[in-house]
Amino acid sequence: MAITLAVIPISGLPEVRAGDDLAALLLAALERDGVGLVDGDVLAIAQKIVSKAEGRVIPLATVRPRAEAESLAHTHGKDPRVMELVLQESKRIVRAERGVIIAETRHGFVCANAGVDRSNAGAPDAVVLLPLDPDASAAGLRDELARRTGVHVAVVVTDTFGRAWREGQTNVAIGMSGLEPFVRYVGQFDPDGYELRVTEIALGDEIAAATELVMGKLLRRPAAIVRGLRYPIADDGARSYVRSPERDLFR
Amino acid sequence: MAITLAVIPISGLPEVRAGDDLAALLLAALERDGVGLVDGDVLAIAQKIVSKAEGRVIPLATVRPRAEAESLAHTHGKDPRVMELVLQESKRIVRAERGVIIAETRHGFVCANAGVDRSNAGAPDAVVLLPLDPDASAAGLRDELARRTGVHVAVVVTDTFGRAWREGQTNVAIGMSGLEPFVRYVGQFDPDGYELRVTEIALGDEIAAATELVMGKLLRRPAAIVRGLRYPIADDGARSYVRSPERDLFR
Repeated sequence: MAITLAVIPISGLPEVRAGDDLAALLLAALERDGVGLVDGDVLAIAQKIVSKAEGRVIPLATVRPRAEAESLAHTHGKDPRVMELVLQESKRIVRAERGVIIAETRHGFVCANAGVDRSNAGAPDAVVLLPLDPDASAAGLRDELARRTGVHVAVVVTDTFGRAWREGQTNVAIGMSGLEPFVRYVGQFDPDGYELRVTEIALGDEIAAATELVMGKLLRRPAAIVRGLRYPIADDGARSYVRSPERDLFR
Repeated sequence: MAITLAVIPISGLPEVRAGDDLAALLLAALERDGVGLVDGDVLAIAQKIVSKAEGRVIPLATVRPRAEAESLAHTHGKDPRVMELVLQESKRIVRAERGVIIAETRHGFVCANAGVDRSNAGAPDAVVLLPLDPDASAAGLRDELARRTGVHVAVVVTDTFGRAWREGQTNVAIGMSGLEPFVRYVGQFDPDGYELRVTEIALGDEIAAATELVMGKLLRRPAAIVRGLRYPIADDGARSYVRSPERDLFR
């Protein structure tokens, strides 16, 4: 019998504030839950928590919208201050239609509102921005957990993204450290000797999706562990998932 | 402590042939593995196995390509017989560039080659097509498992799809029966009273991604169980994930 995975929610985290010590909060919650950490665990953590710890919460009262932001807001029925932040966070707007703003973030991710999100901001009239460098956030947390516990885990920072062509959203990896981003089948052969079609499984995105199943957006369970997965350790981040505009047929 | 999920691979399935009794093969494998089925399990099964059982394997020697297929094949360095099947399986070609054919299948899914796949076909010089009605395949398997065991599970038929903007592929649901396709947060409020941004989590796609983590494309583990997930039972299929062309900004 092959290995069974456990997907374990981490509950009871407090509301996170700028400067909070995420590693300490997570370790305390894991201890309370009797889960702990073991070598090879993959820790998934919601972007919003990471952003809050990194001070990426912006009170809207401090934002002065430029003319383009006012215009976007007017056309799409949005708050001009939020649109200003979307523009600040974007390399470019990919689509703005029917009240939906799809932007390419400065990291290269394509998502609604460049990840600027007003829900669960932890304060009224504030929004949360994506971490400046989510791969660095993941690497920092991974190192800190190893330093304090001696246990080596991988870390995935997750966010909820929509996608082209399909209704609904799923969690994906926007930051990652300690595991190879892709399981590659390219150049391998099936039992009939036929070379597999180009297949590179986006491991971090599948981990993000799996852990979302036990996270709840309103239940204060913004982290989870995947235990039992075998994966190659690597330092490549979720930036590996960014398809360059030249390779992209849909931008 | 919230509920931990188990993601359990089902191993030891034989090579599946047209007309095979999938429910019987799965139940035998589950018994051998000592896993069994319990009420509320979600059974995920790879599309290829379902297609093979349903006789959706086409020997390429039987295919006569039309002129358009010859032309596509010539331009993109493909086999004209495969391109003929892609055209037969498609409502339309969404993009054909740089050797990549992205098509909208007759079901409405947007994916490479309309799901026509030469790898792991179980025979040389043959290709596997998607099931004609993957939701019906899922419903049939769900009913058959309930009839034989008295246990009520949900079934998800999975396939590996690429996506816009991101490198790599993930497993998604192309057929589904017995669980609500979306976890809906629309109209719910965060602790500060701010209404959550439009969020509908695509549960079937996240289950597909989670189970891929224990399936291996070369390891003959084309099925897995998610145990411990609480979900609303529903008969809506994966067709719910098809975004209508009118609502789609990227087609």
